[in-house]
Amino acid sequence: MLRVPFADLYAVLEKTMSRLGLAPEAAQLSARLFAETTRDGVYSHGLNRFPRFEAMVANGSIDVNARPTCAATFGSVERWNGNRGVGNVNAYLAMQHTIELARKNGIGAVALANTNHWMRGGAFGWQAVEEGMFAMCWSNTLANLPAWGASVPTVGNNPLVIAVPRAQGHHVVIDMAMSQFSYGALASYAKRGQPLPVPGGFDAEGHLTTDAAAIEASQRALPIGYWKGSGLSLVLDMIAAMLSGGLATHQLPLEPTLEAGQSQIFLAIDPANLASAAELNHIADGIVEHLHHAKPANPNEPVRYPGEQTLHLRKENLRLGVPVDPEIWGRISAS
Amino acid sequence: MLRVPFADLYAVLEKTMSRLGLAPEAAQLSARLFAETTRDGVYSHGLNRFPRFEAMVANGSIDVNARPTCAATFGSVERWNGNRGVGNVNAYLAMQHTIELARKNGIGAVALANTNHWMRGGAFGWQAVEEGMFAMCWSNTLANLPAWGASVPTVGNNPLVIAVPRAQGHHVVIDMAMSQFSYGALASYAKRGQPLPVPGGFDAEGHLTTDAAAIEASQRALPIGYWKGSGLSLVLDMIAAMLSGGLATHQLPLEPTLEAGQSQIFLAIDPANLASAAELNHIADGIVEHLHHAKPANPNEPVRYPGEQTLHLRKENLRLGVPVDPEIWGRISAS
Repeated sequence: MLRVPFADLYAVLEKTMSRLGLAPEAAQLSARLFAETTRDGVYSHGLNRFPRFEAMVANGSIDVNARPTCAATFGSVERWNGNRGVGNVNAYLAMQHTIELARKNGIGAVALANTNHWMRGGAFGWQAVEEGMFAMCWSNTLANLPAWGASVPTVGNNPLVIAVPRAQGHHVVIDMAMSQFSYGALASYAKRGQPLPVPGGFDAEGHLTTDAAAIEASQRALPIGYWKGSGLSLVLDMIAAMLSGGLATHQLPLEPTLEAGQSQIFLAIDPANLASAAELNHIADGIVEHLHHAKPANPNEPVRYPGEQTLHLRKENLRLGVPVDPEIWGRISAS
Repeated sequence: MLRVPFADLYAVLEKTMSRLGLAPEAAQLSARLFAETTRDGVYSHGLNRFPRFEAMVANGSIDVNARPTCAATFGSVERWNGNRGVGNVNAYLAMQHTIELARKNGIGAVALANTNHWMRGGAFGWQAVEEGMFAMCWSNTLANLPAWGASVPTVGNNPLVIAVPRAQGHHVVIDMAMSQFSYGALASYAKRGQPLPVPGGFDAEGHLTTDAAAIEASQRALPIGYWKGSGLSLVLDMIAAMLSGGLATHQLPLEPTLEAGQSQIFLAIDPANLASAAELNHIADGIVEHLHHAKPANPNEPVRYPGEQTLHLRKENLRLGVPVDPEIWGRISAS
């Protein structure tokens, strides 16, 4: 495994972003978000995703010069147009504005239409908790998951992020797609010939299976909780498309390098004027301590909260260097 | 099966509520919510749940005279104290106020502490969509679900409701607990000796199983999506307890008839000033039509959206009479 210093990863990405045509501020922001994603161990949506990003700039799906604009506003809710700009920049700016709305009115929401893949959704949860906010955000995606009872992809895996602020950076951030396993995860189990740890979809005969290759073949991956995740995915798509006035899952191109025009929701609540930091931390610590003291099923695997692993990986990767794919790194660091 | 006219069910419940000590307005509201729950086919949380409600009034867990009070307010977010009042009345009033906040500021939220079981959470989603609002609400519960990696109940099944308004009453409302199956559902599969349709928990040896009785014995029911639902349950509990200043799951009594003091979140967004009704309906109809046209896995079972079944059952139960448990009905209608 090749590891490189975080600063080098950021610098190379920033230079590459500038070369792709992003203005300095946007290049810095987008590069930082890509680099931090790899630093935090979300390898699928950091540097490893960068080649697809480049391809989508090249094929015109992403407009590197576009910035989001406000389309309508009422009280503490706004509708924005992403103008097909860079997905992680659009999402960051949308969450930043959502935080400002929450700071002013206790709560705020931005519905963002016509944007692009935000890469790691969790980034915008971390962005909010670092400002002391509770936050929620989600994106629709192309149809990659059969709705419950359907035999063909109908709904998106629409990632949902919920973030809870805690003291000293020990935030709780869940970043989950509505599919039990991503196609990336299925592919890597199939490649290793390993069974999935739990059923991940249906085989061609319609039986639940842990055989990743069979699920890739049937295209019938499983929503989390079967009918429940299917319904959840549908309502997230409806809220995002209706409030933003943007595209719904069924309207997004099915070819991944053309998947542009997503609709997203950003929501934040500022607790600062409702409760003291001491009260909030006391409640949060009580919940986390209770979780940590739960008897583990496997004595060697203590129970963890969502995001707990992130801090460990972040520390490790900052110390040892951030793991990068040698081929991708070699190419972009040489150019 | 015994069926009774909806008006009779309501009238008997209203009389019984008055006898339990509820003031007229609260008795009417609570009775209506109980009756509508059975009317809509959510039998577990309507009349069938009423004996437990009576027991909790009798044992002092529910204070029939208490009304919720505002504890803190900032902009469009408020913190309320439910004062251990009647759960469905508290939740209805909290959502009503949330809707008023959203009407004024585009979005609003109420965090309600110290309340009681809201019975059917979906009721408050329907309440909001009937006012043209998008809504989300959830409640924490006693610990009835092992967190992922834990061998003992740690988190609640914390029901989550998300509601999307549509024209002509065809709202989309999802009302889902974080457990794959409720203990009520497990009990009825076990009683019939039927396997669950999908794995619902672990047996005593820690293997995934569709054997409901084995799961009842191990107390290791499954969160939806395994680790995902476990994390989701945790963050819902954290937000509810922290924002409301109320109890968290680990602090709620484990004995069901003493389960009092829940924390809940209500959230609404008013789209009326951001988009025309025509635009909103056009987007929603497009999504629902696409879902309805998806190729079903079983040709005899068309794909449905969450809440679609509710309208069918409601119509049927209004036409044929509302199904009631003869023993419970006999007792309360005679008293």
